[in-house]
Amino acid sequence: MLKHALPDLFPVAGFRLGTACAGIRYPDRRDLVVMELDHGSHCAAVFTQNAFCAAPVTVARRHLDSGVPRYLLVNSGNANAGTGRQGLRDAQQCCELLASASGCAPAEVLPFSTGVIGEALTVSKIETALPAAVAGLADTGWGDAAHGILTTDTVPKGASRRLDIGGHTVTVTGIAKGAGMICPNMATMLAFVATDAGIDNALLQSCLENAVAGSFNRITVDGDTSTNDACVLVATGRSDLPAITTADSRYAMLCETVEEICIELAQAIVRDGEGATKFVTVVVDGGMDANECLQVAYTIAHSPLVKTALFASDPNWGRILAAIGRSGIADLDLAGVDIFLDEVCIIRGGEVAAGYSEAAGQQIMNRDEITIRTSLGRGNVSEQVWTCDLSYDYVKINAEYRT
Amino acid sequence: MLKHALPDLFPVAGFRLGTACAGIRYPDRRDLVVMELDHGSHCAAVFTQNAFCAAPVTVARRHLDSGVPRYLLVNSGNANAGTGRQGLRDAQQCCELLASASGCAPAEVLPFSTGVIGEALTVSKIETALPAAVAGLADTGWGDAAHGILTTDTVPKGASRRLDIGGHTVTVTGIAKGAGMICPNMATMLAFVATDAGIDNALLQSCLENAVAGSFNRITVDGDTSTNDACVLVATGRSDLPAITTADSRYAMLCETVEEICIELAQAIVRDGEGATKFVTVVVDGGMDANECLQVAYTIAHSPLVKTALFASDPNWGRILAAIGRSGIADLDLAGVDIFLDEVCIIRGGEVAAGYSEAAGQQIMNRDEITIRTSLGRGNVSEQVWTCDLSYDYVKINAEYRT
Repeated sequence: MLKHALPDLFPVAGFRLGTACAGIRYPDRRDLVVMELDHGSHCAAVFTQNAFCAAPVTVARRHLDSGVPRYLLVNSGNANAGTGRQGLRDAQQCCELLASASGCAPAEVLPFSTGVIGEALTVSKIETALPAAVAGLADTGWGDAAHGILTTDTVPKGASRRLDIGGHTVTVTGIAKGAGMICPNMATMLAFVATDAGIDNALLQSCLENAVAGSFNRITVDGDTSTNDACVLVATGRSDLPAITTADSRYAMLCETVEEICIELAQAIVRDGEGATKFVTVVVDGGMDANECLQVAYTIAHSPLVKTALFASDPNWGRILAAIGRSGIADLDLAGVDIFLDEVCIIRGGEVAAGYSEAAGQQIMNRDEITIRTSLGRGNVSEQVWTCDLSYDYVKINAEYRT
Repeated sequence: MLKHALPDLFPVAGFRLGTACAGIRYPDRRDLVVMELDHGSHCAAVFTQNAFCAAPVTVARRHLDSGVPRYLLVNSGNANAGTGRQGLRDAQQCCELLASASGCAPAEVLPFSTGVIGEALTVSKIETALPAAVAGLADTGWGDAAHGILTTDTVPKGASRRLDIGGHTVTVTGIAKGAGMICPNMATMLAFVATDAGIDNALLQSCLENAVAGSFNRITVDGDTSTNDACVLVATGRSDLPAITTADSRYAMLCETVEEICIELAQAIVRDGEGATKFVTVVVDGGMDANECLQVAYTIAHSPLVKTALFASDPNWGRILAAIGRSGIADLDLAGVDIFLDEVCIIRGGEVAAGYSEAAGQQIMNRDEITIRTSLGRGNVSEQVWTCDLSYDYVKINAEYRT
């Protein structure tokens, strides 16, 4: 199964979610999500690196600088991007509306938007729907929220773990959305992860940054980086685990779980990539450093020719080879390069492997989850990225997106 | 008309072309081309920068180092790439066969192959067809040769000029092929240009390199660089123009015409890009240097989201804006950025231009030739690249290429 069903999402004490149908783009669809952080929570976030970042990203960054937020406010259907000064006023006004409905300061609200770029946000629709979302706040609201943040996604995406740290149960739960305009850095479009662990703010931020580096920043659907990407990690401190204040073994355990959650969410985004029919792990090992491994991996993962061959289940390894060749690695010795499709070696030392047959390659290509592994044979560093194929439906979805 | 008909191709004295049907991939299709250079000709060439270059590229480079070639031998249908040591032996053997059929040395033959990667070249088919190609050598053979080098191209591509240099008529004629796996550097797949001007070898090489920089290295269909790209410029010296031996005004005139021919051929490749329905010129001006202009231009030209919006004739300028934003230009001041679709200004100072309407954008998008112009507002350097849209047919052609 390429796409996984939404797993059980464990509540996180001190973190409540409420949703409503605001009719921002489609009627009768959950498109407004409010998330509430208990007093005493900490919050870390990373945002898109696109220079044309959307208005809510600008406002969220500013509000985060001024202290720990009490609320996250998300709308889907409209990205409020490319909307200039009016867009900033609209994002600010959304914060003010939630602030007055909940009794916090406007700067304690972080706004997030996802959807079509370049259209004005209809704030009045959000104003009308906000009370229902606030009234519905509950720690069991993760599933509805996972639906509420979707755009062209076909399935909701969530991941959840309970772990034991020194005899105390800690929960980590997250949701994400994203199906197109997906590429590092910050490829998530939107992801929200919460834990009831208590943890120092600086540690929380580095925990998030490390997790994102190995998860959301290792996926690509189409090489396009969104204007609205954001990933938020909240720690409510409501578990009975004593607060984590140093980078000790408890911190390492929490970080590991947060990264697992992020990888699961990131992979779910690729599995639901626009038009995707295959989930592809691109591994590059034997490199001299991480940069060159990633350079080769992304060149393969972004190649329209490789991606259409994957869609066709065609073991056209020549296209993989051509992608490696043009990836710009200095002094690459072809005689050291091996390429595998899952367990089948297709290229050994830069040439077709002895015993390789088209039938063997075809058998792998018929699978809907495939690993393309390239060994550069010049070092011992390894990296991997996750991607999907390029299908008719990718073109269809993106040609018809606004019609 | 997106695709242009093959124009009249003037013969170039001292350069003869012959073709034959070798049945390399399809029966009854011209797929073998022999080109003969008169004694006393000079020959310049540039090749793919893909590290996995094909066997014929390796052999052609080596033969070119040993002196001026007498023959160019081209086959379509099979790229002889990713074929290892056997591929090198096959390319070498093709040279030997033509050498013995024509009475030159094997090192005086440059081999070129284009087509599917990773399959062994059937040299026996070329051996059988070679005599017919050699027997048919004629200076009127350009049109047949333009057909003979095609693969997924739907139309033959040629350009031809006669110019007057100091009272002497000089002819420049060229043909090219290429429709997929098209990206700098050396995006041509294959292009052959000949002139009857006499010219010093070093000048000829720099003439070619300059022309390629402004033409074949400014186009992209899908961002993939072929393993087989090559562009050859032959000067036979058979016109009555005294040989050009210094970089004087006559040289400048010749270079200008060679570049015009190369631009016309390069644009013809994009117009015939796999599945292309639109020809798009991406201009970036107001940059601080050529690199940053090209960086922005290629980010726009490679964006699958921009390309599918073009296919849908959707003035979804948010995708152009997002591409500019992620192109990695340091300290880009959005307030200085303007974007135009042909004559219509859509973004002024980073925001939707006053008076811009969706209808105005739609009117431009309905055209089949469109210029996207971005002004960065931080310098006076300008660059342009040419590309096409991303359509269902691109996916179809590349998913079904080997079936």
